[in-house]
Amino acid sequence: MSLAVWRSPLARALHRNRSLAFARYLQLATVRATGRPANRTVVFRGFLENTNQLKFITDIRSQKAEEIDLYPWGEICWYFPKTREQFRIAGQLILVRQDDRDSEFFTARRTVWQELSEAARSQFAWPAPGEDKADAGAFDSASPDAHEPLPNFCLLLLEPETVDFLELRGEPQNRSLYGRDGDGNWFVRSVNP
Amino acid sequence: MSLAVWRSPLARALHRNRSLAFARYLQLATVRATGRPANRTVVFRGFLENTNQLKFITDIRSQKAEEIDLYPWGEICWYFPKTREQFRIAGQLILVRQDDRDSEFFTARRTVWQELSEAARSQFAWPAPGEDKADAGAFDSASPDAHEPLPNFCLLLLEPETVDFLELRGEPQNRSLYGRDGDGNWFVRSVNP
Repeated sequence: MSLAVWRSPLARALHRNRSLAFARYLQLATVRATGRPANRTVVFRGFLENTNQLKFITDIRSQKAEEIDLYPWGEICWYFPKTREQFRIAGQLILVRQDDRDSEFFTARRTVWQELSEAARSQFAWPAPGEDKADAGAFDSASPDAHEPLPNFCLLLLEPETVDFLELRGEPQNRSLYGRDGDGNWFVRSVNP
Repeated sequence: MSLAVWRSPLARALHRNRSLAFARYLQLATVRATGRPANRTVVFRGFLENTNQLKFITDIRSQKAEEIDLYPWGEICWYFPKTREQFRIAGQLILVRQDDRDSEFFTARRTVWQELSEAARSQFAWPAPGEDKADAGAFDSASPDAHEPLPNFCLLLLEPETVDFLELRGEPQNRSLYGRDGDGNWFVRSVNP
């Protein structure tokens, strides 16, 4: 696998914005069962090794996981404040669950769990998200095992199909659209911002 | 009209993050003609007077305007980095165009145009967004009239129906869901984050 051509401006943006912890936060849009859009902040957890797939995590009990089960397509919008760049990346979403033992991604799910902070792992032991607020005590559970993921922990992958890259600092602004040709090779064209 | 109950935490977040210009940037998700989600950064332009409607602007030539024409529903995700708060606001989208002379919002469209910076107004005189990049000279047009909006300029309003407010700093995090009862009055309930 070769790195997609958009990986290089994205790596540069990540590097130049590295002083801002929230530069790894981005917004993931999906479609609800009702056909309406949903949108929430997620944290970028790096690329899956030897692929162009972006890694995120989620809880199987979340609405997001339900939506992705029904319609596994998403578009992320990633704005980098320091360099004033925006990446819109659309593609297929792949949810890797506890029961996906035969999935080629199952080992990656465990590795991502092991790389999380203890605080991040603990959130998966909290009461079910979106339900009436539980007593404070319900959030005080012991730390989950650091090696084996809790059953509700999911790895979420985004396999990009198109990338829309906008540099607000240009004069005029620069905008590039990336896509794939019939052979799966990435191409790019410059368009008006 | 009374201010919706979620206006108060949102006003507080805006105030506490006011040192960051990009705290007024947020991500708007819509649904494409294909049924797939779309997501992009937009700039919050304040509330329409005496309403709970959020104001944005867009170009009638943009994909966003096409999508909203087909399916006028959106969800914004607004993350405030300094206070670590997230507002997800879903609701109806209202596009106010040049030819909407009978719309109750037509005057607001002109007012928003007049409040824009000259640089922001000039972008509406640029070549059509998304088309093959035009020569640099095509972006050097004279400044548009500061009083009367260009025909392709649209006011975009979001009429909120639900608000999902998450405070990441809580112990545990606090999450509140706002909705409206049968009489249109806003209510709130606390849920697990």
